[in-house]
Amino acid sequence: MTTSKPVCLVLGAGAGIGGHVAKRFASGGYHAVLARRTDEAGLTRLINDIHAAGGSANGHIINAVDDGAIEALIDDTEAACGPIDTVIFNLGAQIGNRSLQQTSLKAFEMGWRMTTLALFRVAKHLLPRMVERGGGNLLVTSATSAMRGNAGQHSHAAAIGGRRMLCQSLNAEFAPQNIHVCHIVVDAAVEAPDTLGKLLGPERYAALLAERANGKDGMVIPEHLAETYFQVAQQHRSAWTFEMDVRPYSDQAWWNT
Amino acid sequence: MTTSKPVCLVLGAGAGIGGHVAKRFASGGYHAVLARRTDEAGLTRLINDIHAAGGSANGHIINAVDDGAIEALIDDTEAACGPIDTVIFNLGAQIGNRSLQQTSLKAFEMGWRMTTLALFRVAKHLLPRMVERGGGNLLVTSATSAMRGNAGQHSHAAAIGGRRMLCQSLNAEFAPQNIHVCHIVVDAAVEAPDTLGKLLGPERYAALLAERANGKDGMVIPEHLAETYFQVAQQHRSAWTFEMDVRPYSDQAWWNT
Amino acid sequence: MTTSKPVCLVLGAGAGIGGHVAKRFASGGYHAVLARRTDEAGLTRLINDIHAAGGSANGHIINAVDDGAIEALIDDTEAACGPIDTVIFNLGAQIGNRSLQQTSLKAFEMGWRMTTLALFRVAKHLLPRMVERGGGNLLVTSATSAMRGNAGQHSHAAAIGGRRMLCQSLNAEFAPQNIHVCHIVVDAAVEAPDTLGKLLGPERYAALLAERANGKDGMVIPEHLAETYFQVAQQHRSAWTFEMDVRPYSDQAWWNT
Amino acid sequence: MTTSKPVCLVLGAGAGIGGHVAKRFASGGYHAVLARRTDEAGLTRLINDIHAAGGSANGHIINAVDDGAIEALIDDTEAACGPIDTVIFNLGAQIGNRSLQQTSLKAFEMGWRMTTLALFRVAKHLLPRMVERGGGNLLVTSATSAMRGNAGQHSHAAAIGGRRMLCQSLNAEFAPQNIHVCHIVVDAAVEAPDTLGKLLGPERYAALLAERANGKDGMVIPEHLAETYFQVAQQHRSAWTFEMDVRPYSDQAWWNT
Repeated sequence: MTTSKPVCLVLGAGAGIGGHVAKRFASGGYHAVLARRTDEAGLTRLINDIHAAGGSANGHIINAVDDGAIEALIDDTEAACGPIDTVIFNLGAQIGNRSLQQTSLKAFEMGWRMTTLALFRVAKHLLPRMVERGGGNLLVTSATSAMRGNAGQHSHAAAIGGRRMLCQSLNAEFAPQNIHVCHIVVDAAVEAPDTLGKLLGPERYAALLAERANGKDGMVIPEHLAETYFQVAQQHRSAWTFEMDVRPYSDQAWWNT
Repeated sequence: MTTSKPVCLVLGAGAGIGGHVAKRFASGGYHAVLARRTDEAGLTRLINDIHAAGGSANGHIINAVDDGAIEALIDDTEAACGPIDTVIFNLGAQIGNRSLQQTSLKAFEMGWRMTTLALFRVAKHLLPRMVERGGGNLLVTSATSAMRGNAGQHSHAAAIGGRRMLCQSLNAEFAPQNIHVCHIVVDAAVEAPDTLGKLLGPERYAALLAERANGKDGMVIPEHLAETYFQVAQQHRSAWTFEMDVRPYSDQAWWNT
Repeated sequence: MTTSKPVCLVLGAGAGIGGHVAKRFASGGYHAVLARRTDEAGLTRLINDIHAAGGSANGHIINAVDDGAIEALIDDTEAACGPIDTVIFNLGAQIGNRSLQQTSLKAFEMGWRMTTLALFRVAKHLLPRMVERGGGNLLVTSATSAMRGNAGQHSHAAAIGGRRMLCQSLNAEFAPQNIHVCHIVVDAAVEAPDTLGKLLGPERYAALLAERANGKDGMVIPEHLAETYFQVAQQHRSAWTFEMDVRPYSDQAWWNT
Repeated sequence: MTTSKPVCLVLGAGAGIGGHVAKRFASGGYHAVLARRTDEAGLTRLINDIHAAGGSANGHIINAVDDGAIEALIDDTEAACGPIDTVIFNLGAQIGNRSLQQTSLKAFEMGWRMTTLALFRVAKHLLPRMVERGGGNLLVTSATSAMRGNAGQHSHAAAIGGRRMLCQSLNAEFAPQNIHVCHIVVDAAVEAPDTLGKLLGPERYAALLAERANGKDGMVIPEHLAETYFQVAQQHRSAWTFEMDVRPYSDQAWWNT
């Protein structure tokens, strides 16, 4: 199944940002490899959608925090599909607002493993290969808590804030070696049934959709955000973006109240 | 000459970023209006280039700091070409590194008039009309000194750093009214004979080109940066970017040393 | 009246931060020079308070935005009292929340003249002398809008955000010459009858005091903040602070909501 | 040994910042509890110094990353000495500049355990007690890498940058409960034989001292920095500082080059 297309590996390919970014890269000429932790049926649906649109894709169910799982996924993908050109790192561990008392040591560690360590592992395993091959892209989906800690965000802010600094250190070492790292701060609620939907539960999620989405464009529509990811990966290396924010027109930025 | 095309007004349309952004919007279906302070011949050349490529454009020589000049330009443009959809605010007053002793009160005031006040005047005169018409874009070219003051940047940093805060306050008031404000931090030297070329003088500019550009992509190539401006103006309003940085792959970010 | 004490010049010496900082420096062994725009009686009261406490002080009514006024104040102070060791720059132009429509060009310019240009003028006129004399302190009272623009803050954010960058550029040039610049971000309402009191009007100010001050410590009490200013000016030069924030324990930081 | 003095627990009490902060709090009327990972003799020396100066102190050798070690230290301290009023969190894992290739998964995890998780554990175990008792202080020594990731800082920046966000989330939840959290960014080399001395090795450390310290004040002198820690802990709650930077007068700030 080795493909002549450039390969785009999406870690965290649910029905929200990850899946739509995979679709956009597939329609733009990449072979998309979709990896997610659960929901084989949802994964198959996304791959079928891509095939139906004339694109090329395959997928894996993996638990990224397992020892060696990310490394094996990268190895298997490169063996089966060819060298990875672009990684979309779309993992995170937003667990909702929890007071310090409600945040266990275990949850705090799991947040770090899924958010920060997982990116470090991707970088360790893949960036040296990309350098040898002459370049690549690493696009990281981030969130408001990477920019400031808020009450109830102890685990999430520590993990994703640390990851932002890791992206900066990776960029400092690897941009001159032709690796484009981009940290994309999604500073808003996203239409994402697999993540926000599960976090809020069906009733609150439906209410949010009714209030802000459904034609009102008051939540990030992942299909449209995916276009920005794709354009970033096409930027000429004389004018690379390292960091950008995105939010709906109707939302206040994180620095406003 | 009223056009059915959306109008893109470029303030500061020299041979660098401004001119290339005008070309990109023209090739993307906009009527481009190019305004610059000097060099009628250069202006004509840019307009001819756009016409030759099948695009639509006209231009003005104006001094943006003159009383009423910006306001008249907006009025004249809308009367002649139709409603302005997008403004590219590409004015600034980088005067090179000068110690406090070398920075006169006059230079300090001129920096503010050209960089900060001029944007405020554009916003005052145009944003209410855009709101009435249902929306618009305001893309602002910024620079490293908007993010941190450095020795020798007293005038530039004060002016452009103030302008960044102004962009944030404009965004807070006008994004919910469907005006997309985007602050683009060009954190690097740009291949721009009209500005950097004049600042450095012919010899130093040629040496810089030899060292960093000319196939090495070590300076921002405005033609490529222009693509990013265009894509930002096309972003769906459910996922707008307010701020992004750009630099060549080979450059260290401003926060690194 | 030349004094053997180090001289501390307070620009913006009202009944809030400025006046209390003057008192703290006077009680700490400085001769305090208090300058304010209006209210001769209030000025006299502050000076009498300092004298009554055994301190040394004098004062001036000046309009800092007048041509040459700041420069004359510095000259007169040094002629009359001796070399200025420390400047407390406590001027600003918070005019409350105003929409873009409500913000005139004149107000925008006045905000810049009082907030940004005035600091530049102080620096131009005084820092070279301080360098010659071996050192000095420049402490600048700042506010939330220096960190982010908010709706209604067009004038204030542009001016004070520009000033923050100016402080950084001054620090970069002058810290190695033994001038301690410190930018103090007062991220909260202050018990200040002369500024916040006038901005809100007597009724709203009294209501705010009742809700948040009066023993609740929910507003910045200038007397206590003044202690921090004094300590900053005493920091050993091996461990100088350039920037710090302050707010009451009960307030959310500007980056939180 | 229960003391009527307020207790100040210093985690990371070596011969640099930690030890000098302990001395300053002891001389200011606190009972100091010094904890460090190694060097029983060095610990005894610090405690003897404090006793010789008329202060009160005791100490422990502990490995903060061991399961339960921090929690036991807190319990033992409160049982033996009384309620902890102030924690100086002075742990970190600066391991020098290492490329991604040189940074092992193990080092990356250890950096996080010592820097980020250890603070979370302190907060979990102690802050609820402080709240019950009506208040307390948590002062966190931080570093440049908390503000931006640099090449070679993958482990350190991820850990300490995450910790900064954790401090913000702790502050958001606990400041209104009268806990003063302060994040002190030490943006410079410190005269610290136990940490920087060991990191550089004796020759390079001696050369650095010769070039920058020894009367030149070109490195942070911990004795002087300690004064700032002490003053922060004395700030009135109507004007608390959450974040401040410190560096020698002769150093460029991290945002300058």
